Amino acid sequence: MRMTSLFLRTLRDDPADAEVESHRLLLRAGYIRRVSAGIYAWLPLGYRVLRRIEQIVREEMDAAGAQEVWLPITQPLELWQRSGRDAAYGPELFRLQDRKDTGFCLSPTAEEVVTSIVATEYGSYRDLPVNLYQINWKYRDELRPRFGLLRGREFLMKDAYSFDADLEGLQQSYDAMFDAYSRIFARCGFVFRSVEADSGEIGGDTSREFMAVAAIGEDDFVWCENCDYAANIEAARRGEAAVRDSGDIPAMEEVHTPDLPGIAGVAKFMGVEPSAMLKCIAFETDGELGLALVPGDREVNELALRKALTGKTMRLFGDDDFAAHPELPKGYIGPHYAGASVVVADPAVRSGAVWVTGSNRVDNHVRNAVLGRDFDVDVWADIAAVAPGDPCPRCGHELRIDRGIEVGHVFQLGTKYSESLDARYTDANGEQHPMVMGCYGIGISRILAAVAEGNHDENGLAWPTNLAPYDVHLIAVPGRGEQAVAVVAEADRIYAELRAQGIEVLYDDRDVSPGVKFADADLVGVPVQLVVGAKGVGRGVVERKLRATGDRDELPLNDLGDPRAR
Amino acid sequence: MRMTSLFLRTLRDDPADAEVESHRLLLRAGYIRRVSAGIYAWLPLGYRVLRRIEQIVREEMDAAGAQEVWLPITQPLELWQRSGRDAAYGPELFRLQDRKDTGFCLSPTAEEVVTSIVATEYGSYRDLPVNLYQINWKYRDELRPRFGLLRGREFLMKDAYSFDADLEGLQQSYDAMFDAYSRIFARCGFVFRSVEADSGEIGGDTSREFMAVAAIGEDDFVWCENCDYAANIEAARRGEAAVRDSGDIPAMEEVHTPDLPGIAGVAKFMGVEPSAMLKCIAFETDGELGLALVPGDREVNELALRKALTGKTMRLFGDDDFAAHPELPKGYIGPHYAGASVVVADPAVRSGAVWVTGSNRVDNHVRNAVLGRDFDVDVWADIAAVAPGDPCPRCGHELRIDRGIEVGHVFQLGTKYSESLDARYTDANGEQHPMVMGCYGIGISRILAAVAEGNHDENGLAWPTNLAPYDVHLIAVPGRGEQAVAVVAEADRIYAELRAQGIEVLYDDRDVSPGVKFADADLVGVPVQLVVGAKGVGRGVVERKLRATGDRDELPLNDLGDPRAR
Repeated sequence: MRMTSLFLRTLRDDPADAEVESHRLLLRAGYIRRVSAGIYAWLPLGYRVLRRIEQIVREEMDAAGAQEVWLPITQPLELWQRSGRDAAYGPELFRLQDRKDTGFCLSPTAEEVVTSIVATEYGSYRDLPVNLYQINWKYRDELRPRFGLLRGREFLMKDAYSFDADLEGLQQSYDAMFDAYSRIFARCGFVFRSVEADSGEIGGDTSREFMAVAAIGEDDFVWCENCDYAANIEAARRGEAAVRDSGDIPAMEEVHTPDLPGIAGVAKFMGVEPSAMLKCIAFETDGELGLALVPGDREVNELALRKALTGKTMRLFGDDDFAAHPELPKGYIGPHYAGASVVVADPAVRSGAVWVTGSNRVDNHVRNAVLGRDFDVDVWADIAAVAPGDPCPRCGHELRIDRGIEVGHVFQLGTKYSESLDARYTDANGEQHPMVMGCYGIGISRILAAVAEGNHDENGLAWPTNLAPYDVHLIAVPGRGEQAVAVVAEADRIYAELRAQGIEVLYDDRDVSPGVKFADADLVGVPVQLVVGAKGVGRGVVERKLRATGDRDELPLNDLGDPRAR
Repeated sequence: MRMTSLFLRTLRDDPADAEVESHRLLLRAGYIRRVSAGIYAWLPLGYRVLRRIEQIVREEMDAAGAQEVWLPITQPLELWQRSGRDAAYGPELFRLQDRKDTGFCLSPTAEEVVTSIVATEYGSYRDLPVNLYQINWKYRDELRPRFGLLRGREFLMKDAYSFDADLEGLQQSYDAMFDAYSRIFARCGFVFRSVEADSGEIGGDTSREFMAVAAIGEDDFVWCENCDYAANIEAARRGEAAVRDSGDIPAMEEVHTPDLPGIAGVAKFMGVEPSAMLKCIAFETDGELGLALVPGDREVNELALRKALTGKTMRLFGDDDFAAHPELPKGYIGPHYAGASVVVADPAVRSGAVWVTGSNRVDNHVRNAVLGRDFDVDVWADIAAVAPGDPCPRCGHELRIDRGIEVGHVFQLGTKYSESLDARYTDANGEQHPMVMGCYGIGISRILAAVAEGNHDENGLAWPTNLAPYDVHLIAVPGRGEQAVAVVAEADRIYAELRAQGIEVLYDDRDVSPGVKFADADLVGVPVQLVVGAKGVGRGVVERKLRATGDRDELPLNDLGDPRAR
């Protein structure tokens, strides 16, 4: 493609509303343009990269035995009501009505539609397994669209749905997708980890997220450097610490602790580590008051606490709640508070023999509080948030925490949708069972942004070979001298020859300064730059620059070979 | 693909709601499934064909210099209000609001979005021309979705938009698209004609439709067998008939004509041809009464009549109107009616010297009515609908009328959108002008249906080679004899060998009867069927059947070559 024809205007200045590097550079390099909040038009360069990712995903899905279909973007709301997801999605679901007032939504995923189709077509154990996928635009009415493509409202996603006769089959389908995902992300050229995840509104039991490691990621995840344990921060667990020896413990004793700010201050005053303090967090659950207990150096993982209360509501106390409970002094709560209808504690609370904690009276704490003597626990659950350095639950090695961008997600759904949408099969004995489902998503437009986050410098983008919009950026620098005509002729010849080899070439044939051409080439980020200039042509060479490393060398003008080869 | 794995269940019975062959067969053969009225899911076979058409379109658009982009499906309604198309589209536009009550529509086309983007990026005559296209799903809330994919509410369309500095440039861009379309439709393997068309809600002046000739087409079109004249029935013109010699004409005379049904009866009674009768049709226009005059063997082309009244409303009289005008007797209207504020006549009215027509009194007609003596005409316009056998307006040869499916449309838009959305450029003298636009659509999912309409028989579909979901349908018929194992082994070997050659093979390896396999193969419509059976393997041959013609021959088992070659 000649740049004199390419629909591209790069921007010299940073766009005002771009908060992250991928967004800033994709706008500056003319890959995308904003049409509305979280809604983008894909210009020629951007769309080429998107289609290359799409093709990698398609090839690996086909190789894994999944079959490509295309499901409607406009889906009957009635199906979503049957599965209960209409309500579960709430305002994130774009809704509309047709001229006859029939309700539709714009698909954020397609469990309902695909399940209802499989339910109609298949009905015997001989039909299973089957795995159907589509590459299609998805919709989510985000409250705060931001970070460009990373949290958009219209985005390209690959979603696959497997149907098996039993859990064993599901595990095989799931493993095949897991392996395909690993190959896809490796081919896209970025560092990723698969982490244990919470399933969110999709429902189901086992799920893992694939995270692209990135400083600007919206999600924290925990991982072990020693084994392959990794988990979303909300799903992360840690190994149990050793139980400390208790010995003889004096009776619990109240200590006056006025004007001491926070746990650190009290611990110092009492002469103990913060980890020897017992933190008591009040919450409301189904109209009653509960306490959550974690060591003083920990935070409560709210999601884990909610799960520990199986099915009940949960809301941490706010100022209004404390105002309504004057007998419960914020900052001085102790685990022996008599008004608690349920006490939930992290297993770490078992490891401390004695605790310093609140006394349930303002300006007072207690020391020598002992589990089973001075306070009791109703529910044990991993409710303490994981922190860097915690022991790995699998191997005991230290855990790390990093930020990541979620680019894929695999779920073992079970029978949630096949039950509600009647996708059943008859087994060899004539008995009916719901099909056992898995679902598997990849954010294709999000991968593009994640790769841009991980592959750029201050001058612009630097695409990995497999995803670049073009293989080679050919730059003619004819100058104003008598050699100019010869330089253009050589560049034209190289352009034709490389294309004849099947190499995709972006050819800067514009009548602009060399500086503008070099700056645009670095901004656009094609992996290999070839510069045809007057001096080089005089010496019979072309200069090659590798965008990612900045490495330069020269190639003979009359024997370029494949300039992509390193 | 092995049919034991393929997600496919063919239907033995005709679906109840399928009115046309393409719809009936695409459902029966498992290409598509209905999700809602006019909204379909594309199953593996259907999506493969759709993607092959998409790829042909993409290749020809790229070859013609157009650049692929992707524009949002969810478009801000505000842009549509600026162009005036929000109102023009009316209830056919799917509308929705986001959580902040911002209005959006689901794109039926994308003139507004693409024009606003080009307006932002480009501003100089040096930037032009540019032609951007996308292949994307489109939405139209049809009042009566029907005929399967032919009149759906969610459909795949290629839409391109050209931007030029002047009309000369537009003509070049338009011609390039016209040629690309001709190549695309030829590659898709169907008979098409490009016809003069009315531009509808898109606006603009010159436009042509590409029609696939098909008996079930929704649009009539007129074409000349002698020259390349062709037009949509609403836009069609005809050559002028020779003017009959008048000679001496007696005075106009009233004749009593009771109980004569219609023009044929009156003509017979009066001893003239229906073409010698003058038909007078009453209409309402901006609150006044008008008459439209055409020969008695013609119908009035309403669209042409409306255009002849430049900018005024037009509504043909109904029973209520006649009830309100008792002085104007329906069936007996004459052109000399004094209450008409405007009389519009087809040029054919000039060719008759004398006319038999209504007398404006019930049960009476007149003979010897003469233009200029007994009645006058205010507006001359081609308002008589074209009929088969009419002279071609270009060469005078007889015209034919056929039915067709509109599969493409090219428009010279001019400056309608560039004016309303401020897409201007500065010329070499520093003066500003609106860009001159063209737009070019192809219905990709509609092409698939049109090809199915033109390529089937009573047993099923018969795809042309370029569009078929697979190249070869390999059918194993192992039987129950001792040869069965050898037959399966041979079929497996052929399956592997053909795939190694890059041939796309659908392999019927199912444990079902030969009859079911043959019926499914004919229904699915892959162009070449290869049957591996016990007898053939014994003789060292494979039977080949060409689906479209039914021709059969045999190929040597050990030297199949490329079985696609005829």
